Amino acid sequence: MSDLQKESLLLHEKYKGKLSVEVKMPLNSMKDLSLAYSPGVAEPCSQIHQHPEKVYDYTIKGNLLAIVSDGTSVLGLGDIGPEASMPVMEGKAALFKAFAGIDAVPICLDTKDPEEIIKTVKLLQPTFGGINLEDIAAPNCFYIEEVLKKEMNIPVFHDDQHGTAIVTAAGLVNALKLVDKKMEDIKVVINGAGAAGVAIIKLLLNMGVTNIVMCDTKGAIYEGRQEGMNPVKESVSKLTNKEKLQGKLADVIVGADVFIGVSVAGALTPEMVQTMNADSIIFAMANPIPEIMPEEAKAAGARIIGTGRSDLPNQVNNVLAFPGIFRGALDVSATDINDEMKAAAVQAIASLIDSDELSADYVIPGPLDSRVVPAVREAVGRAAQETGVARKHIFTDDLVNSPE
Amino acid sequence: MSDLQKESLLLHEKYKGKLSVEVKMPLNSMKDLSLAYSPGVAEPCSQIHQHPEKVYDYTIKGNLLAIVSDGTSVLGLGDIGPEASMPVMEGKAALFKAFAGIDAVPICLDTKDPEEIIKTVKLLQPTFGGINLEDIAAPNCFYIEEVLKKEMNIPVFHDDQHGTAIVTAAGLVNALKLVDKKMEDIKVVINGAGAAGVAIIKLLLNMGVTNIVMCDTKGAIYEGRQEGMNPVKESVSKLTNKEKLQGKLADVIVGADVFIGVSVAGALTPEMVQTMNADSIIFAMANPIPEIMPEEAKAAGARIIGTGRSDLPNQVNNVLAFPGIFRGALDVSATDINDEMKAAAVQAIASLIDSDELSADYVIPGPLDSRVVPAVREAVGRAAQETGVARKHIFTDDLVNSPE
Repeated sequence: MSDLQKESLLLHEKYKGKLSVEVKMPLNSMKDLSLAYSPGVAEPCSQIHQHPEKVYDYTIKGNLLAIVSDGTSVLGLGDIGPEASMPVMEGKAALFKAFAGIDAVPICLDTKDPEEIIKTVKLLQPTFGGINLEDIAAPNCFYIEEVLKKEMNIPVFHDDQHGTAIVTAAGLVNALKLVDKKMEDIKVVINGAGAAGVAIIKLLLNMGVTNIVMCDTKGAIYEGRQEGMNPVKESVSKLTNKEKLQGKLADVIVGADVFIGVSVAGALTPEMVQTMNADSIIFAMANPIPEIMPEEAKAAGARIIGTGRSDLPNQVNNVLAFPGIFRGALDVSATDINDEMKAAAVQAIASLIDSDELSADYVIPGPLDSRVVPAVREAVGRAAQETGVARKHIFTDDLVNSPE
Repeated sequence: MSDLQKESLLLHEKYKGKLSVEVKMPLNSMKDLSLAYSPGVAEPCSQIHQHPEKVYDYTIKGNLLAIVSDGTSVLGLGDIGPEASMPVMEGKAALFKAFAGIDAVPICLDTKDPEEIIKTVKLLQPTFGGINLEDIAAPNCFYIEEVLKKEMNIPVFHDDQHGTAIVTAAGLVNALKLVDKKMEDIKVVINGAGAAGVAIIKLLLNMGVTNIVMCDTKGAIYEGRQEGMNPVKESVSKLTNKEKLQGKLADVIVGADVFIGVSVAGALTPEMVQTMNADSIIFAMANPIPEIMPEEAKAAGARIIGTGRSDLPNQVNNVLAFPGIFRGALDVSATDINDEMKAAAVQAIASLIDSDELSADYVIPGPLDSRVVPAVREAVGRAAQETGVARKHIFTDDLVNSPE
C-alpha cells in the first residue's frame, strides 16, 4: 500500500466517510420545533399540495442531487459492487458541495438490472432536483440515461460520459486555435468504446467534426463489422468512419490530427504518433497511466498533449464540468441537461483562457481555477432558459451576473 | 393562516428547506482531493470490496438513515403525495440530527404501491444504515414494515407505529405505579385502528396486558365481526377482546382502567370517563385537539391524562423515542430493531422519572429532557447486543457508559 493509500484509509476511518447532514433552520427551542416540525410544517406541506412547483421554494429538493451508482465501473477497479462504491459516491457528493454548494447524497443501488435501476431512480423523483449517474458500466449506462432523460422531469446526467466529453472538447477548442485548424477539417481517432468515448463522439459531431474513427480492442469500428459489436457500437458505426476504415489503431491513426484516448496505459506508441498529421493533438486520459506520456508524445512530434493527471499539464478533470453544469441547471430548476447546455459548458470552459495566455501546455484551465464554476453555471443556465427547459428565468440580457 | 403558519412558511422559504449536506473531511487542496477522491479513494473501495462489513468503517452508511414516505398519511393532512410530504420528512431528518447526531435524508417515493415501495427500499440497502418509515397509511404500513424487516439486514422502524406506542407505554408504566395497578390486571380500551393503535396493542401484550379492546369508527373489534374488517383488524380481533364485547366505544369503555386515543377530537366524552374504573388513566393523542381535554377528563373522574400537545402535561411525543432508538441501533450496527429493543426503550424512558418526582402531571419526561436520548440509546444498544442483532459490541457489563 502506498503512503497516499494509507493516508486515505486512515482519513476515511477517522471521519467515517466524507459527508454529514446538517440542520440549517434554527432548532433550539420548543418554538423552533413547532415551526420546523409539527404543527407549523403543515403549512408548507399544504402549499406544495396545492401548488406542486412550490416544492422548489419550501424544501431542499431544488438543491438536492442523487449520486446514483450500481458500482459496476468504479475508478479502475471495475465491478466492485454498490457498498464498495460508496467512498467514491460520497467523494463525488463532497466535490459537488465544495465546488458548487450543491447538497448531494450517494444512492448506491443493490442491483445491476437496468430496468430496476430506471424504475428506482424514477420513484426517487419527488425528493431530488437532479440525478448524477456515476460509474455505471457501458452499455447499460447509455440505455439507463436515455430512458431516464425521457421519462423524468429533472436533469439526468451521466458524468462519466458527458463530464469527460465536455472537458476534452473544451481542450480541443483551444488546441485547434493554437494549431489553426477547424473542427470540420480534422480527423479524430478515439481509442476506447466505453462511456466517455461514445459521449465524446456525440459532442464532437454536434460541434462540427465530421471525420471520426473509434477503435476498441478489436480495432476500428466500421459499419458492417461483425466481431465484438453491440447496439451502441452499431450506432457508433453509423455516425462515424464514413470511409469504413478497417484495421488496428496503428492503421487508422495514420493521418489523424487528434487522438483521444479513453482506454489503457501504453495504447498509443511513439511510432503511431509519428504517422499522425503535423501539429497533432493528443488527449491521453487512461488513469493513472496515460496511453502515452507527454514527453514521449512530444518527442514523436505531437504539438499538444493533455492527460487525466494532476501532475501533468492540461489535466482533463471532470471537476471543471459537473459542478458548474448542475449549479446552472439547479439554479433555473431545469427539467433537463440538453445538448445546448453541454455545448455552452464547453465554450465557457474554453473561453476562460485568453488568446494571449493560450499555449501548448495551457489549453485547459486548472481544476482549482475559481472562475470555472461561475462561468459554466451562467452559460448552462442561460442555455437552459434559451432552450425552454428552465422552470425559473434568473438570467436576463441586462445582467451579466445573476440577480442572486 | 395563523401567525405560526405564516412564520413557518417564511422560514421554509428563507432557508429552502431545513437540511444541508456538508463535507466533514478536509477538501482545500489538490492533496486533500487526492485523498478524499481519486486516486486515494480507491483504497477504502478495495477494502470494502474485500471485507464488506468495512463499509461501516469507511463511509457514512453506519450513520445514514433514510426517512422513507409515500406521502399517504401526512400529519392531519392525509394523502397529500410525496412532494408535499417533503417538509415533514426533512423536519424528521432535522430532529434525528438535532437530538441524536444521526445523518438522515428524506426519501419520498413516487408510488403508493406497497410492492414498489418494498422493492425500492430494499435496493437502497447498500447506502443506508437504517430505514425510518414515516407517514405511510394503514394497512400498507404494516405489510411494508413486516416484509422489509424480514428481508433487510439493517433496522427498519415505522415511527408512526412504534414511536407513539413506546412513549405511550412508558407513560403507562409510570401511571400504573401512581395508581398501584398492574399490567396484567387492567382493562385497556384503544380508540383508533390506525398505525399507532395496532402497534400499541402489540407492545402492551408483550408487556403483560391481557385485557385490551380496540374500537374503530364502527365500534369494538371482535372476532367474527363482519363489517369494516381488513387483515390487520382480523389479527387484532384474535389478539384482543377475549370476551368478544360488541358495541360502541361508550359501551366497551365501561369498567376500563385505561383509555388510549389515537383517533379524533372529542371521541371521548365526560360521560364515558364517568363509567371507567376509579383512578382511570387517559392518553388522548388526537392532534391538535385531543379526544378529551385534560380538565374535562379530570372533572369527570380521570386521575392521569396525557395528550400529544406540548402545552399540556404528559406530552406523548415520539421525539422521546426515535432519536435514542436509532442512535442505539446504529451505534452497534444493528441488523434489526426488535421487540426487546422496543421494550428496553419503554423502560429507559419510564425510569427517568424517580418515584419521588412522579405525579399525575409528570408520568412522561419532557421532550427536551437531555437525559432521554443517552438513556434510550444505551438501553436499546444493550438489548440489541443481548438479543444477537448487534454487529458491534460496544457495551460491556463493566461499563455503565459506552467507551466512545
